[in-house]
Amino acid sequence: MTYSVAIAGASGYAGGELLRLLADHPEFEVRTVTAHANAGQALIAVQPHLRGYAHLTLQETTPEILSGHDIVFLALPHGASGAIAAALPDDVLVVDCGADHRLEGADDWAAFYGGDFHGAWSYGVPELPRADGRQRDRLVGTRRIAAPGCNASTVSLSLAPGIRAGVIGAGDLVSVLAVGPSGAGKSLKAHLLASEILGSANPYAVGGTHRHLPEIAQALRWAGAEDPRLSFTPVLVPMSRGILATSSAKLAPGATPESVRAAWEDAYAGETFVQLLPEGQFPRTADVLGANTALMGLAVDLHAGRVVVVTAVDNLAKGTAGAAVQSANIALGLPEGLGLPVNGVAP
Amino acid sequence: MTYSVAIAGASGYAGGELLRLLADHPEFEVRTVTAHANAGQALIAVQPHLRGYAHLTLQETTPEILSGHDIVFLALPHGASGAIAAALPDDVLVVDCGADHRLEGADDWAAFYGGDFHGAWSYGVPELPRADGRQRDRLVGTRRIAAPGCNASTVSLSLAPGIRAGVIGAGDLVSVLAVGPSGAGKSLKAHLLASEILGSANPYAVGGTHRHLPEIAQALRWAGAEDPRLSFTPVLVPMSRGILATSSAKLAPGATPESVRAAWEDAYAGETFVQLLPEGQFPRTADVLGANTALMGLAVDLHAGRVVVVTAVDNLAKGTAGAAVQSANIALGLPEGLGLPVNGVAP
Amino acid sequence: MTYSVAIAGASGYAGGELLRLLADHPEFEVRTVTAHANAGQALIAVQPHLRGYAHLTLQETTPEILSGHDIVFLALPHGASGAIAAALPDDVLVVDCGADHRLEGADDWAAFYGGDFHGAWSYGVPELPRADGRQRDRLVGTRRIAAPGCNASTVSLSLAPGIRAGVIGAGDLVSVLAVGPSGAGKSLKAHLLASEILGSANPYAVGGTHRHLPEIAQALRWAGAEDPRLSFTPVLVPMSRGILATSSAKLAPGATPESVRAAWEDAYAGETFVQLLPEGQFPRTADVLGANTALMGLAVDLHAGRVVVVTAVDNLAKGTAGAAVQSANIALGLPEGLGLPVNGVAP
Amino acid sequence: MTYSVAIAGASGYAGGELLRLLADHPEFEVRTVTAHANAGQALIAVQPHLRGYAHLTLQETTPEILSGHDIVFLALPHGASGAIAAALPDDVLVVDCGADHRLEGADDWAAFYGGDFHGAWSYGVPELPRADGRQRDRLVGTRRIAAPGCNASTVSLSLAPGIRAGVIGAGDLVSVLAVGPSGAGKSLKAHLLASEILGSANPYAVGGTHRHLPEIAQALRWAGAEDPRLSFTPVLVPMSRGILATSSAKLAPGATPESVRAAWEDAYAGETFVQLLPEGQFPRTADVLGANTALMGLAVDLHAGRVVVVTAVDNLAKGTAGAAVQSANIALGLPEGLGLPVNGVAP
Repeated sequence: MTYSVAIAGASGYAGGELLRLLADHPEFEVRTVTAHANAGQALIAVQPHLRGYAHLTLQETTPEILSGHDIVFLALPHGASGAIAAALPDDVLVVDCGADHRLEGADDWAAFYGGDFHGAWSYGVPELPRADGRQRDRLVGTRRIAAPGCNASTVSLSLAPGIRAGVIGAGDLVSVLAVGPSGAGKSLKAHLLASEILGSANPYAVGGTHRHLPEIAQALRWAGAEDPRLSFTPVLVPMSRGILATSSAKLAPGATPESVRAAWEDAYAGETFVQLLPEGQFPRTADVLGANTALMGLAVDLHAGRVVVVTAVDNLAKGTAGAAVQSANIALGLPEGLGLPVNGVAP
Repeated sequence: MTYSVAIAGASGYAGGELLRLLADHPEFEVRTVTAHANAGQALIAVQPHLRGYAHLTLQETTPEILSGHDIVFLALPHGASGAIAAALPDDVLVVDCGADHRLEGADDWAAFYGGDFHGAWSYGVPELPRADGRQRDRLVGTRRIAAPGCNASTVSLSLAPGIRAGVIGAGDLVSVLAVGPSGAGKSLKAHLLASEILGSANPYAVGGTHRHLPEIAQALRWAGAEDPRLSFTPVLVPMSRGILATSSAKLAPGATPESVRAAWEDAYAGETFVQLLPEGQFPRTADVLGANTALMGLAVDLHAGRVVVVTAVDNLAKGTAGAAVQSANIALGLPEGLGLPVNGVAP
Repeated sequence: MTYSVAIAGASGYAGGELLRLLADHPEFEVRTVTAHANAGQALIAVQPHLRGYAHLTLQETTPEILSGHDIVFLALPHGASGAIAAALPDDVLVVDCGADHRLEGADDWAAFYGGDFHGAWSYGVPELPRADGRQRDRLVGTRRIAAPGCNASTVSLSLAPGIRAGVIGAGDLVSVLAVGPSGAGKSLKAHLLASEILGSANPYAVGGTHRHLPEIAQALRWAGAEDPRLSFTPVLVPMSRGILATSSAKLAPGATPESVRAAWEDAYAGETFVQLLPEGQFPRTADVLGANTALMGLAVDLHAGRVVVVTAVDNLAKGTAGAAVQSANIALGLPEGLGLPVNGVAP
Repeated sequence: MTYSVAIAGASGYAGGELLRLLADHPEFEVRTVTAHANAGQALIAVQPHLRGYAHLTLQETTPEILSGHDIVFLALPHGASGAIAAALPDDVLVVDCGADHRLEGADDWAAFYGGDFHGAWSYGVPELPRADGRQRDRLVGTRRIAAPGCNASTVSLSLAPGIRAGVIGAGDLVSVLAVGPSGAGKSLKAHLLASEILGSANPYAVGGTHRHLPEIAQALRWAGAEDPRLSFTPVLVPMSRGILATSSAKLAPGATPESVRAAWEDAYAGETFVQLLPEGQFPRTADVLGANTALMGLAVDLHAGRVVVVTAVDNLAKGTAGAAVQSANIALGLPEGLGLPVNGVAP
């Protein structure tokens, strides 16, 4: 059957990437696209790369316009999706690409976002290993999905296997990320101007203030950590897309290079979209550009006493829109990878 | 039916892009990949972005290994495909992505390339308007296709409509191209090092020496020009892929902004993969990244007396591998756009 | 002696570059910096790369604060400097880096800018060859200097030598420029966001609408052109700074490759900051990054019948702030190159 | 007085940067430049950005040609400077920009480099705090200087203050660096091609294999660490120059945010070329482009229990050539900052 789809926030980067991916989806058909400032314009006037959608016009983002579809993807600024989602019928599959429904803890929400707390939906990172199974199982049949933060899912996927297997400690985690500016959206902010980013590496949210921190901690607790502690530093670098997360953790007592590698192999064996590379190989973000794939390289540095995981993700694809579509496929009982690319666009 | 496919030169950029596009082709199945220095290695060890081809190993590039497939794509350095192609059976569809079979004139070949001249095959730019029809017609049923030079097809598509319609002169053409370095392939040359390209715009082949010049002139003669004269300057800019060609020509006596626009509209009406943008709009290379699409903007500058055409193409996609696949589809009587993306990967 | 200097608009890109260059000037001392929104802040809070100015605080941009210095550099948005300049004493050397005092023709101003017309000051491109001498002569002793538009001076310097010598025609000029986004300043505009510029080449002002057109025509008339006609297309490319202008003109009847090269050699013989490269060599923008240097390569394409000039300029240095300082040196009777770098920052 | 200078390896990136910096040095005069493959060519044919050196021709790199100068800078590949240096007179000031004379331990040399061990010279990072003083003191009067590895000095400067003051532990250090490819030199390697670097973040030497590791450990031991353990991961990002090092360490028992900040303030108080930014501010590599400046931001993440230091350095300037010149100034008793820029080239 064909599922009818509406996308709210179709003029932004995440909305655009949803449209690009859904163009190849054999069961989903995008019927409605909405926006805020650009409502009334032809979609391709705002998203000129989406030539296949010449027939669509951006409409207002209202519950009335979004209702009446089988699936609604919300690609709205943080804080904007809660109210709209609440007005949609229960039997509509709603996938929120914003932060509003990711956190289980009201305190976390208050500390890092603020405003009305809307509660957590099923978290859209299917491959995430949990102490009690896998996140995938919690997506089957759901009608409410919270797509992950791109940095958060990249780090959580990197570290959860070792925590679940007990081969790394969770009390002294460090992640440093090279990230492209598209993760920040189309916001008109001076530090996102091309002149500021080109030829430069720019850190931000240093020292424990990034909003994805509670989301990562939540995922690592699901994997078995009691009280995960993470030093997290994102660095903007001059590439439009991509996250390269270098994460490390203390090697647990008794763990060996073999047991460490086995933990990650075990976590992602058989997965199409999260792949551990062979020993000695590490991924580049170009390898996952435009793809729904997280590639991971693993090293055990015995001298430093740390396990190092390097993970490459396209923040807009596997980091956001791809995770949203993959999770929607699962919720509806479709083949999980339907419509999702596994090959990157390189060079 | 499923056509079996072999790709020679699968370790290079053009070969990699062929593989990426063919992964989504419902009728083509890549069975064999060959390389030179990398023969014996797993394909994904050399092309780590092509996760969907984990089952393929690079073999030697020999006629024996390539024979026995329905289709052979040759993505080899200039001068290398002539001999191999000659050894393949006549009923195999051979698509040469190199220059060896593009030029009709032995003199042109001698002047710009040198070495053995192998004669011209059907030129793989289906949408190219000719005085006597369209290039597409010459691809139907052929078993030998010469995929175009990426810069050449971009410029030819830009200017041929006006020449065919007589609204521009062909005696004083100017094209300046911003190009990404992937068009030069994986060659280990100092001027292609990242440190040389990053943060800089670097011209090359200034003053009439670029090898694509005779190929463009040939296409413009097909469009009706008697003796086309083109000033052609490519400029390497810091983006991995993409061509943005700014081409201009003298407005012909009697031509008007309306008749000019009509010439291009007429040339590309109904085309999926070559699209003229509405008046006042011009394309960016990001809009065509990874897509088989050439986007074109048109302006008539009455004060300067010139028609300006700005065309964006992904040199590896529509510029090379996409043109090859599209032309192969036509040759085999398949729907022309089978397996080919129309949406770009942006931002 | 030491001249006291004030810089208005010190929080912007042009103002920052003035400060960077003046840090090495042995006779100029920056005493006052002003800004609009950032007034009250420490300069290095806004321009963190200017460590040598830790002692300066941004003040309001008023005639009162600017008066009382020997030299005032205005680096303000177009339309903002006219009124302020009018309020400064006649004996202060005022250098306007904006457009307000570049154009001699009120009609040109009205057509391309609009608003109050303030009349032309001495144009700050010393090396520009004129039919009646050189622009340098008009800067000696002046107290009012209009620093050039960066694109305009790059193109004017490229073409004026051939026009003055009569070896090229002025009726069919074509310039296509690869330009970095810093030329557009720190404006918060969506098309200047890093995500829009990275990995892409983006044309703008296609078809004869760019504001630098009348400025170029004015300079070419000074060189002897009666009615210059220029097709001008700038293309934003992913480098923070730099202009690579590829300009071409019809070879004049009777002109030869030798007479053409002689025209440019004659124009720039002995110049430190505008250099013609040897035959067969062409400049890259990296070669002039941070330097007050325009490098130029020249080719005569006999088949196309055009002379091609490729010129590299740093839009903020030689294109703006360097031209301003060099012109100020001349006005004050100082050695012309005082404090100005000739070596680029490469790679 | 004027010191005569020879530069060996003047055709490479480090050699070029030495020349660029020395052009502004009032006491040093470059008389001789040598190279290997490019010997016999004009310097500006190989380094076209160095317009001020039009009078120099590249000579062979031999002890005979290098002798007879007051100062010799060696910018040669690792392993090449030992033999040449040994043949130079004792009273010549020799500054080696390669690795050959950095390490005190023959075992470290054997493990990470191999080949003949030449012993350590005075290490050229003047500001480096040592338990027994400051590295600067060891440079006074020396005639043999080992300029640092760019990554190594960046990390050592980041962490040494906290180790010396006892406010961080040295047993669990983590550094992740975003680095530009120019640090790898002009080597013709496939992974350094522009197409591989543009639009991508590429890790290398993951898991404890990078050659700068023993150099960092040595510096941290000088600062007081008994057995420093560092997890070190460099990531190539698409900028030609620059290092942004994010380093972290466990907060020592009893240390407070105040005592931590005091340790770094104390280490770099009064330093011109190593500056700690105010609380809440962090540097970008653009801020130090072309400058001899290391900028540092500091955060104490109490929840993670780590001190985070983000340091920006231009790998060719402060990271290599600037450190060499600064150290030479000290050795000769000249003002330390002579000829060295403190302002970056931004944007």
